Amino acid sequence: MESSTPIENLRSFIDVPEDHDFPIQNLPYGIFAPAGGGDPRPGAAIGDHIVDLRALESEGFLATGAAGQSRVFDSDSLNGFMAGGPRVWKSVRMRLQQLLSADNATIRDGSEVLQNVLHDRKSARMLLPARIGDYTDFYSSREHATNVGTMFRGKENALMPNWLHLPVGYHGRASSIVISGTDVRRPWGQTKPDDSPPVHGPSRLLDFELEMGFFVGEGNELGSPIPIDEVSKHIFGLVLVNDWSARDIQKWEYVPLGPFLGKSFATTISPWIVTLDALEPFRCEGPGQDPAPLPYLTSSEARAYDIHLEVGIRTEDMSDASVVCRSNFRYMYWNICQQLAHHTMNGCNARPGDLMASGTISGPTPRSYGSMLELSWRGTKPVVLSNGEERKFILDGDSVVMRGWAQGDGYRIGFGEAAGRVTPA
Amino acid sequence: MESSTPIENLRSFIDVPEDHDFPIQNLPYGIFAPAGGGDPRPGAAIGDHIVDLRALESEGFLATGAAGQSRVFDSDSLNGFMAGGPRVWKSVRMRLQQLLSADNATIRDGSEVLQNVLHDRKSARMLLPARIGDYTDFYSSREHATNVGTMFRGKENALMPNWLHLPVGYHGRASSIVISGTDVRRPWGQTKPDDSPPVHGPSRLLDFELEMGFFVGEGNELGSPIPIDEVSKHIFGLVLVNDWSARDIQKWEYVPLGPFLGKSFATTISPWIVTLDALEPFRCEGPGQDPAPLPYLTSSEARAYDIHLEVGIRTEDMSDASVVCRSNFRYMYWNICQQLAHHTMNGCNARPGDLMASGTISGPTPRSYGSMLELSWRGTKPVVLSNGEERKFILDGDSVVMRGWAQGDGYRIGFGEAAGRVTPA
Repeated sequence: MESSTPIENLRSFIDVPEDHDFPIQNLPYGIFAPAGGGDPRPGAAIGDHIVDLRALESEGFLATGAAGQSRVFDSDSLNGFMAGGPRVWKSVRMRLQQLLSADNATIRDGSEVLQNVLHDRKSARMLLPARIGDYTDFYSSREHATNVGTMFRGKENALMPNWLHLPVGYHGRASSIVISGTDVRRPWGQTKPDDSPPVHGPSRLLDFELEMGFFVGEGNELGSPIPIDEVSKHIFGLVLVNDWSARDIQKWEYVPLGPFLGKSFATTISPWIVTLDALEPFRCEGPGQDPAPLPYLTSSEARAYDIHLEVGIRTEDMSDASVVCRSNFRYMYWNICQQLAHHTMNGCNARPGDLMASGTISGPTPRSYGSMLELSWRGTKPVVLSNGEERKFILDGDSVVMRGWAQGDGYRIGFGEAAGRVTPA
Repeated sequence: MESSTPIENLRSFIDVPEDHDFPIQNLPYGIFAPAGGGDPRPGAAIGDHIVDLRALESEGFLATGAAGQSRVFDSDSLNGFMAGGPRVWKSVRMRLQQLLSADNATIRDGSEVLQNVLHDRKSARMLLPARIGDYTDFYSSREHATNVGTMFRGKENALMPNWLHLPVGYHGRASSIVISGTDVRRPWGQTKPDDSPPVHGPSRLLDFELEMGFFVGEGNELGSPIPIDEVSKHIFGLVLVNDWSARDIQKWEYVPLGPFLGKSFATTISPWIVTLDALEPFRCEGPGQDPAPLPYLTSSEARAYDIHLEVGIRTEDMSDASVVCRSNFRYMYWNICQQLAHHTMNGCNARPGDLMASGTISGPTPRSYGSMLELSWRGTKPVVLSNGEERKFILDGDSVVMRGWAQGDGYRIGFGEAAGRVTPA
C-alpha cells in the first residue's frame, strides 16, 4: 500500500464484494475462537476471513518497533491493544492493510505458517471483544427523548430542563452484556397493574433499543478529566448495541434512581469493533445545538458519523428479518466526544475496554424510531411485518437483528450484526 | 481450637485488647502490600498483624484437601477465594482460627519461615480487596428515603409508591471505587443556579453517605435468579462504604435516569472484608415489613445485622475526628438477602467480587442520619463539631472517617475504617 492510494482504490488479494461489510478499508477487530476448538484470540475481519492477530504478532509481522507493544495480541481480549492508544492502532492498521493488499505477496504467497493466519469467519465463534469494566448508557437522541417524554409527560414537558444542557446518562450493568447470537431469556420482574398491588411474573412489554456504543482506549486517571479536544484520541471504535428493555418493569422501578432490572437482564453487542480510523471518511456535522453547550462540551470539530442503521424482527415463521426501523447515527444530538468529555469531567476515570452506549437512536420520521415503544407508540399502533404478522412488543421466539454500515464510494464500512432471539421466561 | 469452645472464649497467642476491631473471632480478609516493597497479596487481619495467606498456602498450611483450591491466594485479589463458596470459606476460617489459637504452636513457635507469615499491619499498604466487576447501590433505609423525600417532595409524598414493595437500587461506577486513605478530589460539575443558566465549576455541596456494602461470592449464571433462601450462601462479607455525593451536581442531572456524575467521582470502602461467618452471632430481626413483600423477597430467616456505625469529620484544625452521626446497620428496611434476590430475579448475573451497597443508613433520630444533607437538613441547620467549627457540607481539607463494629461479649467484630480527605477541585 502506498499512502498516496485513495482509500476507495485499496484492493486486497482476498475477494470482497462491493456491498460486503468487511473490505480492506474496514478491518474491524474482535475476539474469535476458530472452528475446531482453538482458544479465543484477537482477529481482524476481512471478507469471509479472519486474520489471526496473535499468530501474526508471534510470527513477528506486527512489531511496531517500540518495546512492550509486541504482545498486545497474546490475550483473549482487546483491552491491551485498546490501551495502546492511537499511535499503536494506526501502526497496526497500516501494517494490516499492507499485508492484505492485492500486490503484497507476504501472506498471499507466503509459507504455510503465514497462510494459516487466515481463518474462516463464518465458522468461527465470536466472543466479547473486551473485558468491559464499566458500561454507561447515554440518552442522546433528541427525537427519542422527545417521543418518550411526550408519551409519559405530554408534549409541553417532553424534554426535561437539563436535557439540552448536558448528555444525560446512567450506569448500566456490565456483567450481562452478551455477544450477538446469544439467546435472551425474557426477564421476570415486579410490575404494577394500574388498579391492584404489584405482581411478580414474566415481563409482558419486552422491547429493543437501537443504539451504538464506543469502546474507550487509553482512558484517564481518577481526578483528571479528558478535555473535549483530546477526547477522540481515547475512543477506540464503535459497535452496534441492543439495549433490551422490559418496559413494564422499568415503569414501576425507575423513579427516582433510574433504570435497573428493566435493563440489566441482557445487552447485546455486535462482535466486530469498527475503528474511528475506518470511520474517518464518514465523520460529519451533527444537529445544531441550541442553546450552545458550555465550553467543556464545545469543540470546533465535526463529530457525528454518517452510519446507516436498521432493525429487523424475524419471527419463528420467517426466514429473513422484516425491517421495522431505518435510522442513522448522525441524528444523535450529543456526540461521542461530548459524552466522554462529560463523563470524565467530574474526575471519573474511564478505563480501556469501558463501553459507552448512545441511547436509542431515533430519527425524525416514525419509521426511524429506534424502539417498539416508539414504533408502536406505546402499543397503540401495531407494527405490521413483511409476512403480515403484527407486533406491539417482542414475543418469545422473535429475533431482533440490528445492522449498520457507512456507505463509501464503491465500498462500505459495515458493522455486521447485533442479533438475539428471545426465549421464554 | 475445639469446636465446642464458645466463640467468646477463643484466644490467640497474638495479644488483642477487648475493644480491638480484629480479634481471632473476626479474621477479616483484605489485599495488602507489606512495608518494604512486597507485592500485593491476600491477608487476614488479627490485632496489629496480618497473616500472609499466600505464604501460608504455599507452605501447605491451608490445603483443604480438595483439588483446585490450593492456589486461591496466589493472586492480587480475593475474587478466586470469593468464588470458592461457603465450604471453602468455612474451611479456611476454621484452619486460621486453629493456627492462631493460643494453644497451637505451629506458627507461635514455628520455624522462621512460618513466623514470617505475620506482617505488621499498620505499616502495610492496603489495596482494593477485589476486582469489582459491577457496583450496585441500593436505597434501603426507610428513614433516609423518607428524609430525602420530605425535603424534595414534602411529607405527604416522601416515599415513592414503589419503595415499600421492592429494594430500589441503581448501577454505580466500579472504576472510581477507592480504598480507605485515598484522597478524594472535589469534583467539578454542571450545576443549575435557581435563576440563571447552568454553570460549570467545582461542586459546592459535597457530602458523604454512610453505607455498608457486601461482596458477592459464587454468583449466578445469566438467566438463573438466586432464590431468596439460597442467597446468603452467595454473600462473602461486608465492608464500610462512603458513597461520596455532590448534591448540587446530582440535583441537576438525576431526572429521569438517576444519579451519575454526582456520585461517580469516588466511592471509598474499608479495606477489610468482614465475613458473614464472623457476623453470624450478630444476625437479628430487621424492621417489620408492611405491606408483606412478594414471595420472591420473603424469607423466614432474620437477616439484619446489629452493627454499630459512626461517622466523624476531622477538619484541618483537629487531631481526632468529631463524631457527627451514630447509626446501626440493623435499621435497614431491606436486608442484604432481599437485595441480592431482587437484583438477580430478572436473570441478571452477579459475579464473584461484585459490590452491592446498602444506600445511606439513617436511623430514627436526627443524630443517626447518615449524610450531611440530612444532618444539616439541606444546609439549614449547621452541624457543630467538637472544636466549635460548623459544617453544612464537607469542605476542602476535611477528612470523613467511618467506623463500624458488632459488640460481642468481651470482644468486638470491627470493620476498621473507611476514611478519605477532600482535596481542592
